[in-house]
Amino acid sequence: MMKTRAAVAVEAGKPLEIMEVNLEGPKRGEVLVEIKATGLCHTDEFTRSGDDPEGIFPCILGHEGAGIVMEVGEGVTTLEVGDHVIPLYTPECRECEYCLSGKTNLCQAIRITQGRGQLPDGTTRFSMLDGTPIHHYMGCSTFANHTVVPEIALAKVRKDAPFDKICYIGCGVTTGIGAVINTAKVEIGARCVVFGLGGIGLNVIQGLRLAGADQIVGVDLNDDKEETGRYFGMTDFVNPTKIDGDIVDHLVELTKGGADYTFDATGNTKVMRQALEAAHKGWGESIIIGVAAAGAEISTRPFQLVTGRVWRGTAFGGAKGRTDVPKIVDWYMSGKIEIDPMITHKLTLDQINEGFDLMHQGKSIRAVVEF
Amino acid sequence: MMKTRAAVAVEAGKPLEIMEVNLEGPKRGEVLVEIKATGLCHTDEFTRSGDDPEGIFPCILGHEGAGIVMEVGEGVTTLEVGDHVIPLYTPECRECEYCLSGKTNLCQAIRITQGRGQLPDGTTRFSMLDGTPIHHYMGCSTFANHTVVPEIALAKVRKDAPFDKICYIGCGVTTGIGAVINTAKVEIGARCVVFGLGGIGLNVIQGLRLAGADQIVGVDLNDDKEETGRYFGMTDFVNPTKIDGDIVDHLVELTKGGADYTFDATGNTKVMRQALEAAHKGWGESIIIGVAAAGAEISTRPFQLVTGRVWRGTAFGGAKGRTDVPKIVDWYMSGKIEIDPMITHKLTLDQINEGFDLMHQGKSIRAVVEF
Repeated sequence: MMKTRAAVAVEAGKPLEIMEVNLEGPKRGEVLVEIKATGLCHTDEFTRSGDDPEGIFPCILGHEGAGIVMEVGEGVTTLEVGDHVIPLYTPECRECEYCLSGKTNLCQAIRITQGRGQLPDGTTRFSMLDGTPIHHYMGCSTFANHTVVPEIALAKVRKDAPFDKICYIGCGVTTGIGAVINTAKVEIGARCVVFGLGGIGLNVIQGLRLAGADQIVGVDLNDDKEETGRYFGMTDFVNPTKIDGDIVDHLVELTKGGADYTFDATGNTKVMRQALEAAHKGWGESIIIGVAAAGAEISTRPFQLVTGRVWRGTAFGGAKGRTDVPKIVDWYMSGKIEIDPMITHKLTLDQINEGFDLMHQGKSIRAVVEF
Repeated sequence: MMKTRAAVAVEAGKPLEIMEVNLEGPKRGEVLVEIKATGLCHTDEFTRSGDDPEGIFPCILGHEGAGIVMEVGEGVTTLEVGDHVIPLYTPECRECEYCLSGKTNLCQAIRITQGRGQLPDGTTRFSMLDGTPIHHYMGCSTFANHTVVPEIALAKVRKDAPFDKICYIGCGVTTGIGAVINTAKVEIGARCVVFGLGGIGLNVIQGLRLAGADQIVGVDLNDDKEETGRYFGMTDFVNPTKIDGDIVDHLVELTKGGADYTFDATGNTKVMRQALEAAHKGWGESIIIGVAAAGAEISTRPFQLVTGRVWRGTAFGGAKGRTDVPKIVDWYMSGKIEIDPMITHKLTLDQINEGFDLMHQGKSIRAVVEF
């Protein structure tokens, strides 16, 4: 049992509280990781705010981290002390029906306990100093200086990669780029539309540039997003509030008949419908990335699908974490993709609540906490 | 100008009227076909009834025919007098962006005029004896003993195939089998669910048998459909009114986690949702085949897609008619697929309205009019 500092979500809707907590050592198949940096993602805020019906409190949020292996539990064979790792909220056991299907990244090995805020044995490693258990979050809990994570939920990455940048590969980067590469499988020359130019949408854009798309249209209500979008490869910008007529008609015309691929990175179900309907008749595919409000539903006329559009979704960009995340780190290190300009704010753990303020104000692409 | 006998939809919602009509000869790129047999499809009835908001009257319905080339217009190079043909409501020009995309069968070459009930030059070949133009329907108008069809909308088929069976390949057979082979691309060993065991659903079932599916679950409100479904390869039958609890939960359990592929052949948007949600998490794909009521919408929670389900549709089974229809005729002739047991009723043109009665009573799989 050790002590570490963490930002604890004590109660739904309240600011995180920075405190010292107890952390038990790794059990069989588990690994103790010293977190060196963690990004703040909208999903953390979705849970913190109380909007997430599956949120369990108290918990330690955070799922976009990077760190160093401090200790390995019994039976751990693929990691050793000193390895650099990125925790994975979508693990990769390489043994379950899902991992072996070749069709999905949604490993089910530890899904049930992870959903309950527990490690696979059904308990938590974190507790308050008074002994009250603190739940894990998405199997990661990177808003703590140290955390315990199952071996199958850790991607081993090269040691020369900077933690304060590659932590973002733990969620946003991989989700955006993976949606393009793994889920949509965009071909060279495609015309594409990305709805929402936040931390995910910008990564979709650089994924599309990487994939060789001919046209990359960005759609956002905020004109300030245009410059950054263009920096990452966006070829056209559309602010739906500043066009005449219907946004779908506008986009279909702009893409000469509809986009080959469209991506929703807004989480707004009305936008998801626009994204589908802006896809090209006959073959256009629309990928839902954003997480919608609890209970919200998407709708369209079935005619949209019967005339050839395809509606898909993606989680963690369809990436198999232990396999794909180390490659994406390599791509970053070789300059194939960029991360640095997206890390707009650096915070200490004590400043973490300011990070959520920046997010709400639309001032940050990514705020990163360094330990 | 010749005269021929036809069943004319004079007015929405009225029975068809059998009468002699004028038929002009084929213009450039057109072909005069003597129709030998035609099936009666729900889509004909959808338009006849007045439910189809795009119905244009008077018109000659029918889009599931087979016949013999009687005369070819100027510039026709791929067909000659005496060829056996199946008219195609989805043409295949092999020149438009859609045909050349390799991604869709939705040839757009003559779409606009076809939608207006005209041949490509914007006029009709049919007229009443008093000269009133009669509209074409789906580019086929097979409820006439003779019809004029563009060359690109005719599949040339072998001469030893019986017209009264292969006419069904003009819509139902190809739509059902094609949904499996072209749209879903079902693999050997797949678990599948088919909603609606009518003339399309049964062809989905035999398509799944052909594709080597391990489990073929049929869902229908009518227990009488079970026997025929099993004949064509169905392995499990579910009547949603006779199970305890939710149909989706029941099907997910029956297919051990959800189906790899589900097919809606009902046209009911509530069923379309069930079909999507009965698909396997991570990779299940749901294919909409049925035509929904005007204005009806499909809905689901985006979570269903984010967790890996895919929502698609299909028109004419994704088949490129001039290329694929002759192959399906071969499959019928070689016994790879069956059609004879589905042709439950033979009618004369004068009896055609009885065919719609049989359809409403659920007594026919397919009624065929022979000339």
